[in-house]
Amino acid sequence: MKCIKSISGMKNFSRMQHSQGFKIGFVPTMGYLHKGHLSLVEIAKRNADKVVVSIFVNPTQFGPNEDLDRYPRNINRDKKILSGMGVDALFLPSKKMMYPEGYLTYVEVERLSKILCGASRPKHFRGVTTVVLKLFNIIEPDIAVFGEKDYQQAVIIKRMVSDLNLNVRIFTGKIVREDDGIAMSSRNTYLSSDERKRAAVLYKSLLLAKDLVKSGEKNCKKIKNRMKKLIKSEGGKIDYVEIVHSESLESLLSIEDKARAVVAVWIGKTRLIDNMQLK
Amino acid sequence: MKCIKSISGMKNFSRMQHSQGFKIGFVPTMGYLHKGHLSLVEIAKRNADKVVVSIFVNPTQFGPNEDLDRYPRNINRDKKILSGMGVDALFLPSKKMMYPEGYLTYVEVERLSKILCGASRPKHFRGVTTVVLKLFNIIEPDIAVFGEKDYQQAVIIKRMVSDLNLNVRIFTGKIVREDDGIAMSSRNTYLSSDERKRAAVLYKSLLLAKDLVKSGEKNCKKIKNRMKKLIKSEGGKIDYVEIVHSESLESLLSIEDKARAVVAVWIGKTRLIDNMQLK
Repeated sequence: MKCIKSISGMKNFSRMQHSQGFKIGFVPTMGYLHKGHLSLVEIAKRNADKVVVSIFVNPTQFGPNEDLDRYPRNINRDKKILSGMGVDALFLPSKKMMYPEGYLTYVEVERLSKILCGASRPKHFRGVTTVVLKLFNIIEPDIAVFGEKDYQQAVIIKRMVSDLNLNVRIFTGKIVREDDGIAMSSRNTYLSSDERKRAAVLYKSLLLAKDLVKSGEKNCKKIKNRMKKLIKSEGGKIDYVEIVHSESLESLLSIEDKARAVVAVWIGKTRLIDNMQLK
Repeated sequence: MKCIKSISGMKNFSRMQHSQGFKIGFVPTMGYLHKGHLSLVEIAKRNADKVVVSIFVNPTQFGPNEDLDRYPRNINRDKKILSGMGVDALFLPSKKMMYPEGYLTYVEVERLSKILCGASRPKHFRGVTTVVLKLFNIIEPDIAVFGEKDYQQAVIIKRMVSDLNLNVRIFTGKIVREDDGIAMSSRNTYLSSDERKRAAVLYKSLLLAKDLVKSGEKNCKKIKNRMKKLIKSEGGKIDYVEIVHSESLESLLSIEDKARAVVAVWIGKTRLIDNMQLK
């Protein structure tokens, strides 16, 4: 596996692959890899000839009081894992390289980036779309893979790709869960052992919603109230509990085929998210 | 010359040229072509193997009370001119194709897009950078050519290309002027014959600034006051008269090597712009 640290080096690698007729699959990450990431790498491997993974803890998607500085890192472990999976290139740019002095350009997907996670993290998705667009321009992937754990992010990226006429096809990977159902996330390492147990309530609340729908409940408000009650009973502090349309992310009053429950909950000082298709 | 109306048709054309090893030069325009545009086409021809010109009156760069609806159009004349110049493809997308229902994504170069023309046209440059980025993604040019008449626009496009790691090289073409010095612009057609005569005052004010600098004047405020006085004497209504650094566009107090005078003036109901390097 090639470890590439410069933008020009990365561009050259991609150009070389394309000139030989290879399709590039790309998985952008912030590192500290878990099985969720690895499932995305597998999707890239199945749908492209060469796989590029990036590790970059992107400062522009963190708010001023968020966890940029303490975001977990373990590059050597990540390298071993990716190399073992047959990844062809790991792109490791520096902050200074990605956002040099005088940097001024941002891309934003309006409306979609202001709701749900965007309501409590106002510049988060602007940072995500900007860095993803930059990585696309540097790596020029034929396909790119995003995880459904960050469901809103995947919807926003797809919208950006379509709106900006980008030449990349977006794949999404299903949520990978621990034995107790909690969605894999690098941020789970922030949890104390007690919090870790209580964090399963996000998944439980989604299952509850699914069960209620299965038993014929169509009223989203009623379902959300039951979810909120359950989450609070485990000491979770709710950022949002919503039932939305899977594509427009618009809030639904009544359950329909594309209904998806999405939750963001503080467990202690850690903000966790999860989501589930309800039908 | 191929006239291409669909995005997929345009992408196919470009892919075909690239697969044969040809470099593509691109000149984006809003049509109603004049000698200024044609000088940009010549630059594209000299620096690339195949030349693509787009004609698209981009709605997102016009404000609600601006001249979108009355912007001059003459596609048949434009086609003849471009075909006669040996242009390889003319891209003519529709508004609906470029901004389909549900369109949400915009790119913005902060700070630079809020000053000078951006102060009186708040969403103008956001519209310009968005459409140019879309056109770059559709046409995938190796080089693209912009005119220096829209000087701020050229600076902003260069900043976007650098910030977003785009794989295109930007060239700029010098301002082409009529006999009395007025910069060629499709909007000059709005002027009555009396206004047309008075419009030469933009150029005259720039020459005055250059002469003052030549004679040793270094105080930008004094130079700007002389320019304003001259413009007002011809009945021009000043939007801005500024002396800025050619790259940062920051306002200068004292003349330096990269000083550039930039002006925006209303002549009757027509807003005209012009600029000149002072040293």
